[in-house]
Amino acid sequence: MAKLPVSPLAPASFPDLPVIKGVRFAAAEAGVKYSNRKDVMLALLDPGTTLAGVFTRSATRSANVLDCQDKIGKDGSSGAAIVVNSGNSNAFTGRAGEGSVAAICDAVASATGLTADRVFTSSTGVIGERLPHDRIIAKIDELNANLSDSAIQMAADAILTTDTFPKGSAAEIQVNGKPVKIAGIAKGSGMIAPDMATMLVYIFTDAQIARADLQALLSELTDVTFNNITVDSDTSTSDTLLLAATGASGADVTGNDDFRNALHKVMLDLAHQVVRDGEGATKFVEVEVTGAASNADARTHALAIANSPLIKTAIAGEDPNWGRVVMAIGKSGAAADRDLLSIRFGDILVAEKGWVSPDYSEEQGATYMKQQDLKIGVDLGLGGGTATVWTCDLTHQYIAINADYRS
Amino acid sequence: MAKLPVSPLAPASFPDLPVIKGVRFAAAEAGVKYSNRKDVMLALLDPGTTLAGVFTRSATRSANVLDCQDKIGKDGSSGAAIVVNSGNSNAFTGRAGEGSVAAICDAVASATGLTADRVFTSSTGVIGERLPHDRIIAKIDELNANLSDSAIQMAADAILTTDTFPKGSAAEIQVNGKPVKIAGIAKGSGMIAPDMATMLVYIFTDAQIARADLQALLSELTDVTFNNITVDSDTSTSDTLLLAATGASGADVTGNDDFRNALHKVMLDLAHQVVRDGEGATKFVEVEVTGAASNADARTHALAIANSPLIKTAIAGEDPNWGRVVMAIGKSGAAADRDLLSIRFGDILVAEKGWVSPDYSEEQGATYMKQQDLKIGVDLGLGGGTATVWTCDLTHQYIAINADYRS
Repeated sequence: MAKLPVSPLAPASFPDLPVIKGVRFAAAEAGVKYSNRKDVMLALLDPGTTLAGVFTRSATRSANVLDCQDKIGKDGSSGAAIVVNSGNSNAFTGRAGEGSVAAICDAVASATGLTADRVFTSSTGVIGERLPHDRIIAKIDELNANLSDSAIQMAADAILTTDTFPKGSAAEIQVNGKPVKIAGIAKGSGMIAPDMATMLVYIFTDAQIARADLQALLSELTDVTFNNITVDSDTSTSDTLLLAATGASGADVTGNDDFRNALHKVMLDLAHQVVRDGEGATKFVEVEVTGAASNADARTHALAIANSPLIKTAIAGEDPNWGRVVMAIGKSGAAADRDLLSIRFGDILVAEKGWVSPDYSEEQGATYMKQQDLKIGVDLGLGGGTATVWTCDLTHQYIAINADYRS
Repeated sequence: MAKLPVSPLAPASFPDLPVIKGVRFAAAEAGVKYSNRKDVMLALLDPGTTLAGVFTRSATRSANVLDCQDKIGKDGSSGAAIVVNSGNSNAFTGRAGEGSVAAICDAVASATGLTADRVFTSSTGVIGERLPHDRIIAKIDELNANLSDSAIQMAADAILTTDTFPKGSAAEIQVNGKPVKIAGIAKGSGMIAPDMATMLVYIFTDAQIARADLQALLSELTDVTFNNITVDSDTSTSDTLLLAATGASGADVTGNDDFRNALHKVMLDLAHQVVRDGEGATKFVEVEVTGAASNADARTHALAIANSPLIKTAIAGEDPNWGRVVMAIGKSGAAADRDLLSIRFGDILVAEKGWVSPDYSEEQGATYMKQQDLKIGVDLGLGGGTATVWTCDLTHQYIAINADYRS
C-alpha cells in the first residue's frame, strides 16, 4: 500500500518539547519490519524516578503488556528503562513471545547496569508473528551510547507504525517556586498492517511524587482522556501508557492541582492527536452527554454514539442525521426518555421534547456539519451524569486501509 | 441515490409461499414517501387467531412499537389486523406519532369490524418526520376490498424500503395427520434513507396454539435467530416480529417439536436473508463460538467478532487476518485464555495453544477467504458455552450508502 497522506486533522507541526531532567532518549534502525527508518527507541530514567502505568484490559494482551503489569507495581529507586519497537506487536506469540521480552530486558539490563525488573518494553505492529528480538538486542549498545536528553522527537518517530504524523505534547508549571515540566509522546491508529490498532503513550516529568500517588493520578486521568477516545471500537492487544516522574525538579507535586491540571492537559492533547490520526479520519468529533442518570450511563450513551457506524458515516457525509443519534441513545442500554432528551449540533438545538425542535432547519444542520471539528451534545434530562468522548468519522479511506490491504 | 444492485448474496428467486388458511393480504400505493410502488400492506386475521410478538428493546422505540407492545399480551378471539407502511418510521415523532398510530388503528377497526386494540401497526423508514397517516387511511377501504389469501408476496414487496430483494420463507409439516403450514416475510437493511436499519418480520401459520405458548416459543426461537444477526451493530427504533397462528389447520401444535423445528427453520432462513441483504454485503459469515465459560460468554465473544470493523473489513478484503479475531476475543470482556483458545476458518485450524497453528499456511487461509459463505470458528477451551451469530462484511458500498447519500 502506498504511503498514507498526512491526516487533514494533523497539527501544523510537532510541538517544541522541553528537556525533562532525569530522562534521556535514543532511537535506532533495527529493521524489525520496516527499512530505512528508526524503529526502536530507548528511554533511560535516572535513579529516583517513579513509574506508573495503565495497560489494555484485553484478555489476549501481548507478552510485553503482561511483563510490564508484573513490574509496574513495584517500588524501585535504581532508575528504569523503556524500550519500544514498531513493526511487530509480539501479541499472540505464545511462550516464544515471553522469551523475546525476557531476552530484551536482560540485554538492556546488562548494557545499562539496571536489573531486568526495571526494564519495561512495548511492541507494536502485526499480531501473531514471532518478534525478531535479536535485531533489537543487536542495537542496545548503540542506543545506550547515543542517549541524549533532547532526543524525544526521535523517540516519537521511532514508535510510529503508519501513523501519518508524530504526536507530542508538553506543559510547564511552577510548584512552590520551582519549574516543573511534562513532555509526552504517543502513537495512534494510522496503519498499513491494520492489526496495529495500537496506542502507545509515554509521558515524562521532572516532578517529584511517590509511585502510589503517581499511579492513582494516572489512573484517574486516563479515565477522562485515553479511555474516552474511540476510532473504531476495536481494542488493541498492546495499549500501554507509561508515566515517569524523575524528581529532578526537586518540586513535590503530591496533591498539587496545578500539576494535575497540566498532566490532564498533556494527556488530553495526546489523546486528541490519536483521534485526529484515526484511520481515514476527516472530522474530529466531541460527544458530550449531560443530564444522564449517572456518569456511567452518560459514558455508555456517548460511546454508543461515537461507535455507531451509521453516525460515523453520516458525519463523513456531512449529513446532519440526528435521527441516528436518537437511534444510538435508544440502543445503548442506558436509561433514556424520549420526551426528555435534547440533541444539539454545536450550539444548534436540533431535537427536544420527543421530536425535532420547531426552530431547527435542515439547512442550519447541513451548514454546521461542513466544519472539521464537530460537537454532538445530548442532554438526557434525567439527572446529573456527564461524560465526554472523542471520535472521528468513518470514511472510504478506513475501508481502503483495512480491506484493500492484503497481509 | 441510484437504485441499488441486487445483493450478490440474494437467493435465486422469491420462494413459493403456501396459502395459510385464516389470513388474507392486500397492498396498495399510499405514497407515504415513495412513488409508483406499493408501500402499505394489510394482513387480516380470522377470529380464533393467536398472536405473539417480539420488539426492539430500544429506549427510543417508535410509537407503533409502543402501541403493539401494549396490545400484544392480551388474548383476543375476534381476529386481528396488521398494517405496515414503508417510507417513514414514525419514530421520535412525539405525541403526533402516537396520534398517527391511533388514527390508523381506528380507521382499520372501522373498515374491518375489529376493535382498535386488535389492530397492530408497523412503520419503517426515516426517523423524526411526521407520518402522513391520512395517505394510509385513504387506502384502507381499497385494501380491505382487495384482500386475498394468495397475496403474501405483494405484502413482502410493500414493506421493503431499499432492500435489494423481498424476503420470504415457508415450511410444511404433519401434526397428528393434519398438514400445518408456516409462511413468513421480512424486510432488512438495504436502504436509501439510511435511518431505516429496520427489521420487520411477519410469520403466519394455520397451526392451533394458545397465545402464551406461542409467545414463549417465539421468544425462545428469536434468541437463536434474529437476536443473533448483526449487520452494523446499530439497533433500529422499529424492529418488530409478529407471529400469527390462525388455527385453521385444526392441528394443535402445543409442545410439538416438529412445529418448533419448522418455525425455527423459517425464522433462521428469514434472519439469514436479512444478513444477505446487509448494506453493501459481499460475504455471508457464520461465527460459531464453542468451549466458552457460559452461553452468554460465547455470545459476547461471537458478537465482538461479528461487529468488529477490523474483522469485517478484512473479510471484505478476503484477508485471512486471524490476528484480528484474537483482538476481538481479547476485547469482548468475556472470559478467554490465550493458551487454550483455537481459531478455525471453515475446517482450517488457524491458531491454537497461544500462537498460529504449525500446520497453517497463509495461502490456505487466503484461498478459503475467497468463498462467498464463510465460517469463523472459535473454541475457548474453557467450558461448554456455545453461540452462533451471523453477519456480513463491511465494504466501500456500506460507506457509499450511508455517507455519500444526503438526507
